[in-house]
Amino acid sequence: MNTKPLKVAVLGCGSVGSQVVRLLGEQAGDLAARVGAPIELAGVAVRRLDAPREIDLPADLLTTDALGLVTRGDIDLVIEVIGGIEPARSLILAALENGASVVTANKALLAEDGPTLFEAAAKAGRDLYYEAAVAGAIPILRPLRESLAGDKVTRVLGIVNGTTNFILDKMDTSGAGFEEALQEAQALGYAEADPTADVEGFDAAAKAAILASLAFHSRVTAADVYREGIADVTAGDVASAREMNCVVKLLAICELRGDAVSVRVHPAMIPASHPLASVRGAYNAVFVESEAAGQLMFYGPGAGGAPTASAVLGDLVTVARNKLAGTRGVGESSYAAREVLPMGETVTSYHVQLDVDDRAGVLASVATAFSEQGVSIQTVRQEGRGADAQLVVVSHPATDAQLAATVEHLRGMDSVRAVTSVMRVEGGE
Amino acid sequence: MNTKPLKVAVLGCGSVGSQVVRLLGEQAGDLAARVGAPIELAGVAVRRLDAPREIDLPADLLTTDALGLVTRGDIDLVIEVIGGIEPARSLILAALENGASVVTANKALLAEDGPTLFEAAAKAGRDLYYEAAVAGAIPILRPLRESLAGDKVTRVLGIVNGTTNFILDKMDTSGAGFEEALQEAQALGYAEADPTADVEGFDAAAKAAILASLAFHSRVTAADVYREGIADVTAGDVASAREMNCVVKLLAICELRGDAVSVRVHPAMIPASHPLASVRGAYNAVFVESEAAGQLMFYGPGAGGAPTASAVLGDLVTVARNKLAGTRGVGESSYAAREVLPMGETVTSYHVQLDVDDRAGVLASVATAFSEQGVSIQTVRQEGRGADAQLVVVSHPATDAQLAATVEHLRGMDSVRAVTSVMRVEGGE
Repeated sequence: MNTKPLKVAVLGCGSVGSQVVRLLGEQAGDLAARVGAPIELAGVAVRRLDAPREIDLPADLLTTDALGLVTRGDIDLVIEVIGGIEPARSLILAALENGASVVTANKALLAEDGPTLFEAAAKAGRDLYYEAAVAGAIPILRPLRESLAGDKVTRVLGIVNGTTNFILDKMDTSGAGFEEALQEAQALGYAEADPTADVEGFDAAAKAAILASLAFHSRVTAADVYREGIADVTAGDVASAREMNCVVKLLAICELRGDAVSVRVHPAMIPASHPLASVRGAYNAVFVESEAAGQLMFYGPGAGGAPTASAVLGDLVTVARNKLAGTRGVGESSYAAREVLPMGETVTSYHVQLDVDDRAGVLASVATAFSEQGVSIQTVRQEGRGADAQLVVVSHPATDAQLAATVEHLRGMDSVRAVTSVMRVEGGE
Repeated sequence: MNTKPLKVAVLGCGSVGSQVVRLLGEQAGDLAARVGAPIELAGVAVRRLDAPREIDLPADLLTTDALGLVTRGDIDLVIEVIGGIEPARSLILAALENGASVVTANKALLAEDGPTLFEAAAKAGRDLYYEAAVAGAIPILRPLRESLAGDKVTRVLGIVNGTTNFILDKMDTSGAGFEEALQEAQALGYAEADPTADVEGFDAAAKAAILASLAFHSRVTAADVYREGIADVTAGDVASAREMNCVVKLLAICELRGDAVSVRVHPAMIPASHPLASVRGAYNAVFVESEAAGQLMFYGPGAGGAPTASAVLGDLVTVARNKLAGTRGVGESSYAAREVLPMGETVTSYHVQLDVDDRAGVLASVATAFSEQGVSIQTVRQEGRGADAQLVVVSHPATDAQLAATVEHLRGMDSVRAVTSVMRVEGGE
């Protein structure tokens, strides 16, 4: 055991930061044994010295000068749990320049500007680890980066946002509409007062970019990710899914397509028998398909102070060991430099529900609308209801452009009174 | 990119070894990019040069002299997929002494004599990695050793043997008895002609020892693991479980109890709502509970040539990178040196089904049998059937010694015609 402690600075003391600080104290003995040297909390940067906190901290450890803390010269390890783009980016860059290794949970920053950070870490010869940025406590980045390094990942399907999974699960189990389920999520603390980042899929899109970058050894940023949120998912969509023995989930989907990749976030129907279908409430799960390993799933709490702190501290132990050994872990791997396909070229299936006139020839004209776009039909279900009928069509896989054009055509047809539900179907072959 | 290749020797060319060799060829470009140097297959040790093989290999790479191969002086990395205790142990030790890092899938050897190997690796300054030894392709050892290094693991529940899970799943879905389900597993290639190692729980016990050692930073060997197989599980047990809305699984259970640990393998009823309950067929899954992260689950194929080879090659990339960097990864961590509790002191719950006389006072005498051992009862269900009745009792948690003594007492009671089913209940708080 080394007796000289490694000094750690924690930037941010909100729900994650305060749990990190708590665990650094409570687990000090185990952390020292696992790292090979004691970890000493050298300072905690906060916005306001007098803010109420979940934990008690000696006043002399608190500072509002985060930049001063990371550049003071004796900090070995920096934990960034402030979130957002600035000042987090400047602080991480300054920490690396000053010789510290960095652990961050900042998905937004990594998805927007990861390469800048990775290059700075490589230049400084330091580690930049970020397991907590995707799916909270679930170990998924390390398995993708290391355990599957000898395999070829072909697809990643993730439920990576607990708020939207809670809302969709509520809609599924209670029949509630989106607004009602959102309000319950807010009342229970699963959704924020301004739920935009979760509900519109921005949070999931950032995570999708990070997952795709690691899975496919390429640079994928948030701007590359096609994104649809769940605000337009209706109780009717959820009921339609149920009739097909499916559930609706907001999925982060990263797929290898030839030499290119497709990266997207949108609600989708998946079969009830799919392992992701049973991920309930605010839980997260990531389903990985690879050539040799086959199908793997990683499941657990996707958010929360303590679970996220667990992921942060797992990284901290690794970067601390590396620091002691004078080495660094796996850095960015982007050698494959794969192109990201536009959404129109992405292959998917559509579930389309229509109100149509109940007369001869309507089914034929609907079928023609599909075939004119080169889309073949997997199943059709028709239900007469007097003068009108309901048609449910599930397509075979086709490009999103073909499918969208088909729906556009259907909307304009005289015999089609309304297109009542359109949703992609995922999780099959 | 380093241009000098790292030389790898593969020991064993059965279902795993041949897939390792195949992937080393097919993924050569990606492996080189991820490692930072080409990986060159320097030799494959086999028992018989002329045995039929799944892959074509140049004759000059094959040798029957495994020891000569690992000691010839230029081998950087050794992959051991022979299995069993000897000659695998001698070959691994010789490889380490000759400066090679080792990747192995050998659960039996690690569970029997891991410390000897770990000490040899530490002395040689080389890596010994073994992700493939537990749950095939599922990344579980790396997450336990690294991702959760900042957390405190309190319990690991694993379905780590695909053969027995297939058999129990078959019994659950078809109502078949053990023998019938075993025969089907053998016909489909999920069970071997001599199924002892799987059915009697030896394979799962070796994996439990490995999981417990990593989870609790202690040395646990196969001899420390309490073990019961599934040969005595009846169709009636499975039906009883179903009536309680449970399923029967063969579980590897590793629990922290105060400063000690309990490590055991036995069939158990778990609630149908538990994430492990939906692990079907020959799949494996490991459920981990820790103080900060909460509940995590890792799911995937637990065996098979290609999935196991994926895990082997993931380790190979890591140890190859370490070799290039002149460093080594995390070695054995056994600082906690926890005692392993005898089974009698392990806390569990029992589900007991009895045929009893249907007369006044019998329930009272059965209840007294429990309370005399200090065991409190959680639920009782009685069903009259004419002169006799069936009683199903589920206990509250108590020590296995208390529970076993209770059952022993019940068996001797005049009013108890037969104890028809006894099974532990797990997966609750």
